[in-house]
Amino acid sequence: NYSMNYLDIIEKKKNNLTLTQQEINFMVEGYVKDEIPDYAMSAFLMAICINKMNYEETKFLTLSMLNSGVKYSFEGMQNVLDKHSTGGVSDTTTLIILPVMASLGYVFPKMSGRGLGFTGGTIDKLEVFENINLNLSETQFKDVLKKVGCAITAQTNTISLADKKMYALRDVSGTVDNLSLIASSIMSKKLAFLSDLLILDVKFGGGALMKTKTEAIKLAKTLVRLSKDFNHNTKAIISEMNNPLGHGIGCNLEVYDAIKVLKGEENNLSYVAKYICYLYLKHFENLNYNTAMEKIDQAIKSSKALNKLKLMVESEGGNSEVIFNEEKLLNYENQNILSNSCGYVCGIDAEKLAKIVVNMGGGRIKKEDKINFNVGVQILVEINQKVDLNTPLCKVFYKNPTQSLKNEILSCFKILNHKTKKNKLILKVIE
Amino acid sequence: NYSMNYLDIIEKKKNNLTLTQQEINFMVEGYVKDEIPDYAMSAFLMAICINKMNYEETKFLTLSMLNSGVKYSFEGMQNVLDKHSTGGVSDTTTLIILPVMASLGYVFPKMSGRGLGFTGGTIDKLEVFENINLNLSETQFKDVLKKVGCAITAQTNTISLADKKMYALRDVSGTVDNLSLIASSIMSKKLAFLSDLLILDVKFGGGALMKTKTEAIKLAKTLVRLSKDFNHNTKAIISEMNNPLGHGIGCNLEVYDAIKVLKGEENNLSYVAKYICYLYLKHFENLNYNTAMEKIDQAIKSSKALNKLKLMVESEGGNSEVIFNEEKLLNYENQNILSNSCGYVCGIDAEKLAKIVVNMGGGRIKKEDKINFNVGVQILVEINQKVDLNTPLCKVFYKNPTQSLKNEILSCFKILNHKTKKNKLILKVIE
Repeated sequence: NYSMNYLDIIEKKKNNLTLTQQEINFMVEGYVKDEIPDYAMSAFLMAICINKMNYEETKFLTLSMLNSGVKYSFEGMQNVLDKHSTGGVSDTTTLIILPVMASLGYVFPKMSGRGLGFTGGTIDKLEVFENINLNLSETQFKDVLKKVGCAITAQTNTISLADKKMYALRDVSGTVDNLSLIASSIMSKKLAFLSDLLILDVKFGGGALMKTKTEAIKLAKTLVRLSKDFNHNTKAIISEMNNPLGHGIGCNLEVYDAIKVLKGEENNLSYVAKYICYLYLKHFENLNYNTAMEKIDQAIKSSKALNKLKLMVESEGGNSEVIFNEEKLLNYENQNILSNSCGYVCGIDAEKLAKIVVNMGGGRIKKEDKINFNVGVQILVEINQKVDLNTPLCKVFYKNPTQSLKNEILSCFKILNHKTKKNKLILKVIE
Repeated sequence: NYSMNYLDIIEKKKNNLTLTQQEINFMVEGYVKDEIPDYAMSAFLMAICINKMNYEETKFLTLSMLNSGVKYSFEGMQNVLDKHSTGGVSDTTTLIILPVMASLGYVFPKMSGRGLGFTGGTIDKLEVFENINLNLSETQFKDVLKKVGCAITAQTNTISLADKKMYALRDVSGTVDNLSLIASSIMSKKLAFLSDLLILDVKFGGGALMKTKTEAIKLAKTLVRLSKDFNHNTKAIISEMNNPLGHGIGCNLEVYDAIKVLKGEENNLSYVAKYICYLYLKHFENLNYNTAMEKIDQAIKSSKALNKLKLMVESEGGNSEVIFNEEKLLNYENQNILSNSCGYVCGIDAEKLAKIVVNMGGGRIKKEDKINFNVGVQILVEINQKVDLNTPLCKVFYKNPTQSLKNEILSCFKILNHKTKKNKLILKVIE
């Protein structure tokens, strides 16, 4: 009797007891097969959120979710890379890292997601390239990969079926923020993707899922430990996400940021993207930081990386025109937001700003929402920059913004009469 | 935005914070109106189960649930009584108490439930009287009440709509056993029934919902405190439920037990039933225990109580034939189960025995299940009775019971080589 059994398992976690591998399998498999209803699963997930799972339980959960879907292997290919970010604001490193690494001879297949809530999704951003097909079949995906060296497609429905169903439920039942559920969700997808090295960007701060360093380090350590236990090469960087990483928030503006970096612009976004490239080169070629950076900068200066992006977009059917004419991405109605005080920019509230852009239509609240690529906010100042009354702080891309919207955006900029201490953007590497 | 709001409230309880009256109302009302889905409500209920509610939250929850339905008033009637048992095994006190109190001039309207899991329901047992209508309209119900002095009908759908929906969900999501949820479920229904005195029988032990004395006392105190805060007269007895209260488990056998008590049989069942009657008489007539007992015994000896049961059953359209021919209820295939050891009966496992009867078809696992009235177990021995090899311990009413079924039943009888200490059946009264 299924109903008897799953209730016993739910009660067990409710009573803060440790679940066996068999019990965890029973729940995951039963849920995937629709034999356990949503209302029972959400109660189970809530019990996990409050009473937690230990590492062993988390490992069993990950394995069970991993086994619910297929695996993607890249036989015959060498130096296959993978990356994953836990989600941030104005974080477009994927669109930089893939072309750079492909131009250096690596193989970079990437399955990405769409944005939900205040963090953006790579798939949404890529749709800025008109007509691009991001629902590639396995054959199409591998063909692009072989031709270009990098390829991006939307997460298929065949990897970690359990995660797809469980994530959707967690999102609507208040059961998102739990270490074991987050870790198993990430790794059940990433372990299905048989790459030679996975680099995780685990972010902390106001604009990230993990609000504190401590939480982010704990998550990163769990992810790396799970990888080791499943014989997967994985490293994780811990990076700060209080201020937006790039200048733009909104699809057009984020693609613009990525193109600018591939054209040589140096900023926080380029720093994080290149750091991740360095970690790949260190692992496979044993290069030190400076040597790796020279190689990466050469890939950019030579336009090889930019051409890889162009080739990938075109190979996936997209219109690559904006890659060599990126100002077109800014060719939409916009207004400057002017500072109403003098001082130093001490903080730009990434989470608040991202939520404003979502509400402007630049992101999704519900899965069905359509994204408007042309709206967003483009930051014009740096942290610790001195500003005067009426210095433009940012541009808002929106038709007829109300005064209240403009005031809301203005309130995201913290202007003080002294400079702030700048934190390291990348705190550490966990391996 | 409804979805935003309920997620915030779920997160709040997940984070072990105290909810406001407004937040609790929002959840209950939203759920009754189908604006909050089952999977969100079950996650919320699980958070309550683990993080608990304080008394104030429990009070707000009860009020909100109470307000989700209608109230039943008995204007123009005096000394209107009500009772509720938290559920036990072989507990048929309702079928004894109502006729006794009606024959003593009291007014006893009762809405009862059906059995689910291992505890029986009065409505199921009454269906032993062929053709009885237990879905009386308010007018029919009050007509029987005025004519007889007592009336029983199934819980209507109009009282505590929230409880109906929440209880069904708790049952299938592992969120049954929480003090606040149990207390609000009981009181939201009982407070809607405007009686002059409610007596609660809060049971503890293996055959009850509350497994320990401490839990039962805590629940009883909460129930009585809620009643006081809503200006309702309520007393609670704490009674033991480790061994079955009567002899029979199964609908026919339990009705048989009730009839036997109304014909003068003295046993544990009659003791608890009469004790509750005494509490009513003490409250309204200020009688002491002995005087009250004389009155109650007189109602039984004179057959007035039995005739009230007959009149009630007939007034509700039922065939009352078995009331004066109760042996007919035992007229089904049965076998004695014989002791396989010598010693004293030190315990009869009520919960296990009840579950066996449920599995035999005598109770329900799912709400849709049909009950077989004619199956069950009738206990033939008392606690501390000396038994020899082959002394009949009980009769199993079942067609061709397997040896394994018989062994299972046998294992419910604990036979030791010494007598056991008999506990008080009614531990205390809370008022």
